[in-house]
Amino acid sequence: MKKYLLVALVTFLSMPLLWAQNDSIFIRKIFDEALERGHAYENLRQLCKDIGARLTGSAEADMAVRWGEGLLKSYGFDKMYLQEVQVPHWERGTKEAAWITDANGNRAKLDVLALGGSVGTNGLMEGEVLHVEDVAALQKFKKQDVEGKVVFISKPFDQKLLNTFQAYGACHPIRGEGTKEAGKLGAKAVVIRSLASSTDDYPHTGSLSYEEGSPRIPGAAMSTKNADLLVEWLQKGKVTLSLEMDCRHYPDKISYNVIGEMTGKDEKIISFGGHLDSWDAGEGAHDDGAGVVHSIEALRILKKLGYKPNHTLRAVLFMNEENGNRGGITYAKVASEKKEQHICAIESDRGGFLPLGFDIDGSVEQVSMVQDLKELLSGFELNRIEPGFGGVDIGPLREYYPDMVQIGLFISSQRYFDFHHSPNDVFENVNKRELELGAAAMTTIVYLMDQSLDKSESP
Amino acid sequence: MKKYLLVALVTFLSMPLLWAQNDSIFIRKIFDEALERGHAYENLRQLCKDIGARLTGSAEADMAVRWGEGLLKSYGFDKMYLQEVQVPHWERGTKEAAWITDANGNRAKLDVLALGGSVGTNGLMEGEVLHVEDVAALQKFKKQDVEGKVVFISKPFDQKLLNTFQAYGACHPIRGEGTKEAGKLGAKAVVIRSLASSTDDYPHTGSLSYEEGSPRIPGAAMSTKNADLLVEWLQKGKVTLSLEMDCRHYPDKISYNVIGEMTGKDEKIISFGGHLDSWDAGEGAHDDGAGVVHSIEALRILKKLGYKPNHTLRAVLFMNEENGNRGGITYAKVASEKKEQHICAIESDRGGFLPLGFDIDGSVEQVSMVQDLKELLSGFELNRIEPGFGGVDIGPLREYYPDMVQIGLFISSQRYFDFHHSPNDVFENVNKRELELGAAAMTTIVYLMDQSLDKSESP
Repeated sequence: MKKYLLVALVTFLSMPLLWAQNDSIFIRKIFDEALERGHAYENLRQLCKDIGARLTGSAEADMAVRWGEGLLKSYGFDKMYLQEVQVPHWERGTKEAAWITDANGNRAKLDVLALGGSVGTNGLMEGEVLHVEDVAALQKFKKQDVEGKVVFISKPFDQKLLNTFQAYGACHPIRGEGTKEAGKLGAKAVVIRSLASSTDDYPHTGSLSYEEGSPRIPGAAMSTKNADLLVEWLQKGKVTLSLEMDCRHYPDKISYNVIGEMTGKDEKIISFGGHLDSWDAGEGAHDDGAGVVHSIEALRILKKLGYKPNHTLRAVLFMNEENGNRGGITYAKVASEKKEQHICAIESDRGGFLPLGFDIDGSVEQVSMVQDLKELLSGFELNRIEPGFGGVDIGPLREYYPDMVQIGLFISSQRYFDFHHSPNDVFENVNKRELELGAAAMTTIVYLMDQSLDKSESP
Repeated sequence: MKKYLLVALVTFLSMPLLWAQNDSIFIRKIFDEALERGHAYENLRQLCKDIGARLTGSAEADMAVRWGEGLLKSYGFDKMYLQEVQVPHWERGTKEAAWITDANGNRAKLDVLALGGSVGTNGLMEGEVLHVEDVAALQKFKKQDVEGKVVFISKPFDQKLLNTFQAYGACHPIRGEGTKEAGKLGAKAVVIRSLASSTDDYPHTGSLSYEEGSPRIPGAAMSTKNADLLVEWLQKGKVTLSLEMDCRHYPDKISYNVIGEMTGKDEKIISFGGHLDSWDAGEGAHDDGAGVVHSIEALRILKKLGYKPNHTLRAVLFMNEENGNRGGITYAKVASEKKEQHICAIESDRGGFLPLGFDIDGSVEQVSMVQDLKELLSGFELNRIEPGFGGVDIGPLREYYPDMVQIGLFISSQRYFDFHHSPNDVFENVNKRELELGAAAMTTIVYLMDQSLDKSESP
C-alpha cells in the first residue's frame, strides 16, 4: 500500500508541473503552426490589397464583411454568423486641400485629412491662424479673440514616454475636443498637428466630437512636418490658412459583426476579436487588420490542432470601432439579452508588431491568475503581464458582465503611431514574422484562458 | 544612542533600495536624453546617406573612419584616437549577372550577389545545376557527379525558431562552407539561397571560405524568391545556370578602429562598441550602423549628464567585422600588449530594432550579478537577461581576459534577417524610436556595469 500511496502522492504533487509541461508542448505547437504554416499574412494581404481601407458605411466595409464571412465559412468552424449592427455613415468626399500664406504672400500646400465626423467647409474657407498648444490653452481665450479665426492646436507627442499610447492619450483631447471647444468660441475651423510619433509628411485622421447646440465647424489634421513648418511661420508673423473639405453625413446603414465559433463543452463563452472597419486612409493594416487576422488565426489554429475547448471560443470581427463602436455596443447588448455567459474577452487592436505580453483588466485575483502563467509564457518571449486595458470593442461587455476578465494583447507600441489612421498604414509596413507572433500570442492566451477559467466546472 | 543606532541601522538596511532608486532616476535621465534630444538617428543618417555602404578597403570605409573621428572629436571626450589595423581588401567589381535556363529554353534573370571573398568567374560561366539541401547532402556526392556543375544549396530558414539568429546559425554552413566543399568535388561554382527570413527579391551576401590547396570557385547568393523559383524549375527537369562575377582581391590596406574615451577614477576599462565597416550592398544601417551610433550615444549621453565614471569608458568603432574581424583581433592584442585592465566589454551588433535586454557571456556569478538588476531594468522594458553571446568584435578579448564579463545587447531579432547583408539594409528601414531605445539600453548597461563592477575598489 505504501508504494501506491507514494505513487499517488508523487502524481498529485507533480500535477501542476505536468499541466505546465503539457501547456508548454501545446503552445509550442501553436507557435509552429503560426510561424511555419500561418495564414495571418496572406489573410491580411487579402484584406488590405483586395479590399483596402474600409470605413464604416463604405462599399469596402460591406465587402470586408463578405470577405470575413467567406473566410470563416471556408475554415468550417462549428458556427458562422453575422450580427446586424446599425452604423453611422460619414464620407470624406473629394480630397481635402489646404494652404498657408504668410504676410509676404509666401504660400505652402499642406498635407491634411479631415477629422472623422467633421462637417465640410462649403467651398474654400480662409482665416487667420490662432496658435494654441492644447485645449486648456484654447479655453483661456475670449470669444472675441477666437471669432472668425482658424485655430491651430500643435501639442506634439511626448517622446520621453516609453509606451507611445500614453503620449497618444495625452494628445487625444486636441483631436477629440479641440473642434468642439473652438466651435463654442466662434472659430471658423480647427487644424491640429497629427497625433503621430514620427516627423513625416503623413496626416493622421481620427474622430472629432461635436456638442448638441454648439456650432459644428470643420476639423482637420496636418502632417507633423507641416505642423513644424506652421509653428515656424507663426513665429515670424501672421499666417492665413485656406481649407476646403467636402465631408458629408449620410443616414445610418445596416452592417454586421462577423462571428465564428468553436462550440465548447459548457455554455460559457470566451470572445476574442479585432475590428473589421478602418479609417479611409491607407489600408487599415495595423489598425486593425492585424487584430482581425490574429483572431481568425486563433480559431483556425486551435481547430487545426484538434483542440476540444472547455468553453465556447468565439472570434468576433467587430464593425465600427473607429467612429462609434456600434459593433462592440451591439455585441454586448445582444449577449446580455440572450443571457449568454461571458467569462472572458480578449482583444487585439495595437497593430501587427512584436507581441510582448498581455494587459489584464480584472480583479486582483484575475490579474494574478494570469501572472501565474508568466514563467510558461516567458518561454515564448511573452514576458509582460500587467494590469491594463482590454480594448474598445470588448469594453461594453463590462457593463453586463462586471466579473469577467478582459485581456488586451500587449504589443510593442514603438512604431504604432507612425502608421495609425494615416495613408501609411498599409500592408507593406507589416512584418510577416511579427504578425505571425501576434497570431500565436492570441491563440496562446485564448487556449490558456480556456484551460484556466472555471476549470473545476468543466467536465 | 539607541536612536542613532536605529538611524544607522535603517540607513544601512535601506542602502540597496536607495542605490536602486538613484539608479532608476539616473537611467530615466538617460532615456529622456536618448528619446527627446538623441543624436542616434541623425548620426545614422549621416553614416548611411552621406557615406553609404563601407566595405573594408573601400573609399567609403576610409571616409567612415574620418566621420567617426570628426564626430567623436566634436563631442569633446577625454580622449579620441585611431588604432591602426591591417585589413583585407576585396571588391565585388562590376555588378553580377545570372540567369537560369530550362530544357525548353525558358530563361529567368536572377537577383544575385557574389559572396564576400569570392573569386570572379572570368567571363560568363555556365553549368548544369546540381541541387542539394545543405552541405552534409553535398558531401555525400561523388566527384564525378559534381564535376563541372553549378551546385545550388537551398536550405531555407527554420521559421519555427523564435530567435532568428538560431535559424541563421543553422543555415550558416551553406554560405561559410558550401563553396569550399563544392570546390573540392570539382564544381564550377556555388549558388545559395540567401540567408534571409523573408521571401523577397533581395539577395544577401556574406563571407565564404576557401581551403589552402583546394580549388577556389565562385560563390554567390540569390534572393529567396529566386531560390523558390529555381527549386520549382528543378522539379520539372534540367536547368542550366549562367553566372558572371568580376570580384577581385587586392593587397591588404591600412585602416583604423576609431576610439573615444571618458577617463575613469581607476585604470580599469569598460569597452563598448559596434563595427564601422559593413557589406557593400545597402547602407549597413542595421548592420552595424546602429551599433556604431548606439555606442557613440552612450559616451555622449553620459558626458551630457555629467557622469563621472569609476572606470575608463571606451567606445570603440571596430573596423572589418564583416570579412576578417581584424579590428577586433587587433584591439584585443594591443590591449594585452599594453597590459590594459579590461573588466567588461559590451557590443551592439543585432540591428536598430527594439531592445529587449542583454545576453551575458561570463561566469555564473557574473550572470547572476546582471540578473540582479532585472527588476530595475524591467522598469525600462529591458526584461530579458540570460546567459548568451557578447559579440564578434569583443570576442577576441576573451583570450587575454578570461575573467572579464562580455555583454551583447539583446535586440528583437524578428526583422533582422529581412535586411542583413542585403541592398535593403538602408536608413529608411530603421525606426527612430527603436534606434533611440537601443542607444538608451547601451548607455544604461555601460552605466550599470561601471557602477556594479569592482565597486569596492573604486574610491
